[in-house]
Amino acid sequence: MQDKFKQLRTYLGEVMDLAATAELLGWDQQTYMPPGSNEGRSMQLATLSRLTHEKFTSDELGSALEDLKSIVEELDPNSDDARLIAQVSKEFDKQRKVPNEYVAEFARITALTHQTWEKARQESDFSIFRADLEKIIAMRQEYANFFQPYDHIYDPLLDDFEAGMKTADVKKVFADLRPRQVALVNAIAESSYQVDDSVLHQEFDESTQWAFGEEVIKAFGYDFNRGRQDKSVHPFTSSFGNDDVRITTRVAPNYFNTALFGTLHEAGHGMYEQGIGKQLARTPISHGASFGFHESQSRMWENLVGRGKPFWIAFFPRLQEYFPEALRDVNLDDFYRAINKVERSLIRVEADETTYNLHIMVRFELEIALMTGELSAVNLPEAWNQKYEDYLGITPPDDAQGVLQDIHWSFGGFGYFSTYSLGNLISSMLWEVIQGDLPDLQSQFEKAEFGGLLEWLRANIYVHGAKYEPMELLKMVTGSALDADPYMRYLEAKFGEIYKL
Amino acid sequence: MQDKFKQLRTYLGEVMDLAATAELLGWDQQTYMPPGSNEGRSMQLATLSRLTHEKFTSDELGSALEDLKSIVEELDPNSDDARLIAQVSKEFDKQRKVPNEYVAEFARITALTHQTWEKARQESDFSIFRADLEKIIAMRQEYANFFQPYDHIYDPLLDDFEAGMKTADVKKVFADLRPRQVALVNAIAESSYQVDDSVLHQEFDESTQWAFGEEVIKAFGYDFNRGRQDKSVHPFTSSFGNDDVRITTRVAPNYFNTALFGTLHEAGHGMYEQGIGKQLARTPISHGASFGFHESQSRMWENLVGRGKPFWIAFFPRLQEYFPEALRDVNLDDFYRAINKVERSLIRVEADETTYNLHIMVRFELEIALMTGELSAVNLPEAWNQKYEDYLGITPPDDAQGVLQDIHWSFGGFGYFSTYSLGNLISSMLWEVIQGDLPDLQSQFEKAEFGGLLEWLRANIYVHGAKYEPMELLKMVTGSALDADPYMRYLEAKFGEIYKL
Repeated sequence: MQDKFKQLRTYLGEVMDLAATAELLGWDQQTYMPPGSNEGRSMQLATLSRLTHEKFTSDELGSALEDLKSIVEELDPNSDDARLIAQVSKEFDKQRKVPNEYVAEFARITALTHQTWEKARQESDFSIFRADLEKIIAMRQEYANFFQPYDHIYDPLLDDFEAGMKTADVKKVFADLRPRQVALVNAIAESSYQVDDSVLHQEFDESTQWAFGEEVIKAFGYDFNRGRQDKSVHPFTSSFGNDDVRITTRVAPNYFNTALFGTLHEAGHGMYEQGIGKQLARTPISHGASFGFHESQSRMWENLVGRGKPFWIAFFPRLQEYFPEALRDVNLDDFYRAINKVERSLIRVEADETTYNLHIMVRFELEIALMTGELSAVNLPEAWNQKYEDYLGITPPDDAQGVLQDIHWSFGGFGYFSTYSLGNLISSMLWEVIQGDLPDLQSQFEKAEFGGLLEWLRANIYVHGAKYEPMELLKMVTGSALDADPYMRYLEAKFGEIYKL
Repeated sequence: MQDKFKQLRTYLGEVMDLAATAELLGWDQQTYMPPGSNEGRSMQLATLSRLTHEKFTSDELGSALEDLKSIVEELDPNSDDARLIAQVSKEFDKQRKVPNEYVAEFARITALTHQTWEKARQESDFSIFRADLEKIIAMRQEYANFFQPYDHIYDPLLDDFEAGMKTADVKKVFADLRPRQVALVNAIAESSYQVDDSVLHQEFDESTQWAFGEEVIKAFGYDFNRGRQDKSVHPFTSSFGNDDVRITTRVAPNYFNTALFGTLHEAGHGMYEQGIGKQLARTPISHGASFGFHESQSRMWENLVGRGKPFWIAFFPRLQEYFPEALRDVNLDDFYRAINKVERSLIRVEADETTYNLHIMVRFELEIALMTGELSAVNLPEAWNQKYEDYLGITPPDDAQGVLQDIHWSFGGFGYFSTYSLGNLISSMLWEVIQGDLPDLQSQFEKAEFGGLLEWLRANIYVHGAKYEPMELLKMVTGSALDADPYMRYLEAKFGEIYKL
């Protein structure tokens, strides 16, 4: 029995080594890889993806899981072993439906389309990317169809990012959320009090920005002994095992928010991965519970902590030391309001907290339309611009600031976007629980102490990895099902105060 | 028939993808990997190495090769296809003798011992590294014994770096070379004319050094679209396919030679790999002919070009622009002599051309003694110091400057060192042929033109990859067998002039 578990762990360890290595190929592609080697890299990614998939869907693994099933029933169902077997079995059944050749081809194609997207974005010309996007859409439809019957063609895609969540569930939450967010944004727009954020649009030395961001996330508890930060076009986090979790960011020389909040966001992802229980290492459940849960952490550290007043009580004086010229004469309250300025803006990753979910809804609805075939790629830019007009009252002046701004579709990440909004909702649900458990939290932040928060998150969430389904974990920790109220309460309190509503 | 070839190429392509990915794990480990993740990385390297080896020694590949053998006999024996099959068959037979488990364990162990060596070197304490070195020695002995019967236990190790070369061959060449090199070094030491190199021991801004080195190798023809340069503790070159060939170097703030000549050396390796014929891509012969041939190229670009007068006629004025303070009042001839100063020094990678091979001979003899068991690891530092006294007349003051200076033993690279000296010999043999073919070469260098040389090397050597055995290729290009005379002629002419012998 112990032997069989040990064998399984060894086998899964090798699958995870392959997966981690494929992840390194991807990280390298976006950080240091020379531009001329994209073709070779796409072949390497295809081979590694196919081998990983082959090994994870082998008959050998199938019968090992089968052998263990009856024995597992005698274990505590919440033990690591029982959960590992259960989750791996579920994932095994799912991946068995996808042919090896599909996996290799999809990896090869998306490694190439990534470059096309980069070029299209650089030249702000969607037509460069269109044919590749069509290929990806067709391949994602093909993928969804491996899982027939389904309620909705988008369900299998969503399930890859948020296990157990259905398209109908997300639609329902968004339908509840949208009018309330729009009402808030409108009230802010109509407020007689408006925020001036010109202080953020000054010259900020790039390496000084970099150093400040790293100082902050060191204080948060991001572990540089088991991680690092590099530059990339689009910020992201990669985990090659919990002892090697790397983040990236980008730096704008004339706009303060880009680098810092990118760094805080990715550090949230990073601390989650670094905090996963060691006993889960080299298993398929040694990662966050879902993309939504992951975003709850990136957005918590970025926004609930990093865009909060207590944090800046600790760090604004320090920031003034980093940028004496630019910030000497700025006061804390003005700065706090500036970084929280509400704006109907074009770029998702730079959106404030009140408009952010509206950016997501645009993408969610367009993705679904592309998958069902109601919308074709050629009409995507127009549809994109129309939705921005409808939800945010603005129209992108070009493709780079519109439909080409996000990396996700270039790697085939259909189903990904809604998890950002789910993350926002989860983060506020958790936050209310945390405030109850740690009433002293805000005054800890004022002293630049974040250990209390990090320890709470590690003990209640990070350590579990993906042992539990996301909605199950949410229920365990908060006692509730997914609920938009806490997030709306948070937004209305915070922005009501800033905008004197 | 064509189908069978195509299938073989596809299969070998996947093996090469795995090998390239393992190479990336290694590159990353030495450049960007966070220190705390060495254990996980060692597992990944073990898995990738084992899978690569498994795939390269599979029955499937064996019977594919068998099937093709009879057909190959009808092909031109020098065609790419015939050569590919022949070389792959040879390597297949060799690797089949090594068990998968050995390969995985050796990769895992050497990933860990690398870190121990780094620590030992940093603290200049051999005792930290000793136990690990003993493990590696035992594993290399075990490895050699897979290939019994052999003439010498060191033969199988040597063969991995220099196919077809025997321990007895190298001993013979070294026996011829040593007295001639020692005589030259003695003559220089006794010369009444001595070189002052204090100009090199000044403060040189690190990023300016970096920029100058990159300007030079761009002029050489190293392709940054298919490569890049990073920092590492020990300079090295990695190839992940001919379209992604990366080099590293290190920078000393108070000594000019370290960074530049490291960069030129590695760029030589890099240009070789970048120049391999595209039709060989993703095959096991898509790399240099041997380590000796590789060193002939790194040492050619570093020394025959980069330490030559014509090169500095072009680049010294440029270097003065980079470092006006330090070099404004230095004249070209003094600088040229300074970078060629002969010195009985401790560090191999910084040794001048006349003493370099003596450093190699020390290592070659010690490696053999460790492998035969005549010498045990515990006595290695003492033996090292004694040989330095015998051959170079100096004694290392500590382990960091002695027995711990080189990375090679930490990754198990027994058999590697002698290829540096073989490379020196080959480089001069080639150089004499090139001078005959391109009589205008030196005056091209004076105009910073290196395209003629690079084209010659590409057409005659690089393009072939590992189609030919190294000694076969040498014969094809020079008409001769390995010969120490050209190298001695070169040294005696160059240093005779500098030291007015």
